[in-house]
Amino acid sequence: MQRMSKAKAPQDSFVDGYLPALLAQASHLISGEFHRVVAQKGLTVSEWRVLATLASTAGPMSIGALARLTVLKQPTLTRVLDRMENRAQVKRIPHETDRRITLIAIAPAGQRFVAELIDLAAEHERRVLEPLGLARSDELKKTLRQMIELHDPLVEDGGAFEDEPE
Amino acid sequence: MQRMSKAKAPQDSFVDGYLPALLAQASHLISGEFHRVVAQKGLTVSEWRVLATLASTAGPMSIGALARLTVLKQPTLTRVLDRMENRAQVKRIPHETDRRITLIAIAPAGQRFVAELIDLAAEHERRVLEPLGLARSDELKKTLRQMIELHDPLVEDGGAFEDEPE
Repeated sequence: MQRMSKAKAPQDSFVDGYLPALLAQASHLISGEFHRVVAQKGLTVSEWRVLATLASTAGPMSIGALARLTVLKQPTLTRVLDRMENRAQVKRIPHETDRRITLIAIAPAGQRFVAELIDLAAEHERRVLEPLGLARSDELKKTLRQMIELHDPLVEDGGAFEDEPE
Repeated sequence: MQRMSKAKAPQDSFVDGYLPALLAQASHLISGEFHRVVAQKGLTVSEWRVLATLASTAGPMSIGALARLTVLKQPTLTRVLDRMENRAQVKRIPHETDRRITLIAIAPAGQRFVAELIDLAAEHERRVLEPLGLARSDELKKTLRQMIELHDPLVEDGGAFEDEPE
């Protein structure tokens, strides 16, 4: 405690106003609320993210792009996809011109399974955004999208969420 | 794919405009950048979060409060704290009046270790916020704080980040 003053905090409590901490807490709380619904449907959070992402994308997607959008590490995502392929929720499709690339697409069973959850997710999102009002909600999304664009390295470097295994 | 139209997406691609997905991606990208610096210093992300949180708080903190602020599950946090206590970076302190509660405080070795990282984190945050400008940065933090306040259940229910063990 005696060294507190050395931390050069930009305000009284560094973590209270530290953007990465605020983003992590908001993300954790908001997602966590809906993840209870996801669990009730028998899906893990990773499976939900994969299905929701694939269901709302026009065509099949590379594993790298899917990893970025689902915020999962590629080895983790590969295991999740194995499991989901066994349940016929997703399918792997070889790339038309580059055989080294495998694309992932949602399968009809996955579409059926996730449709209701996507409706519930949209409803949950509406409840979350309601207290902010339309203008602040749009501004928040615009700012987040800009940050994602500025910081997306567009490379497949793993990720950082899964720091402490259970 | 044929069921896409049933998803009632609030815009063309559901996930593209879905707040929890935007929060997760922004949080992952922004935190991930700094976590490379954290790893170079030999800390895990969880250890960094614990030290940064304790270093910027006026006094010792309950495990529940620390779990919320670090976005870690309590069993995970307990293991992390065991490790850090062995290194004399943190210490456990019994609560003055309620013996069932253990408080966590940063120890001098932890303060010394984290001081430089907090300076680097503040510098990283300034670079992240610079393209947004002061007004939008403040608005973003204000909105995130409001969402955290509205959605913090103030109960110690575990959390949801560590879905897929490595």
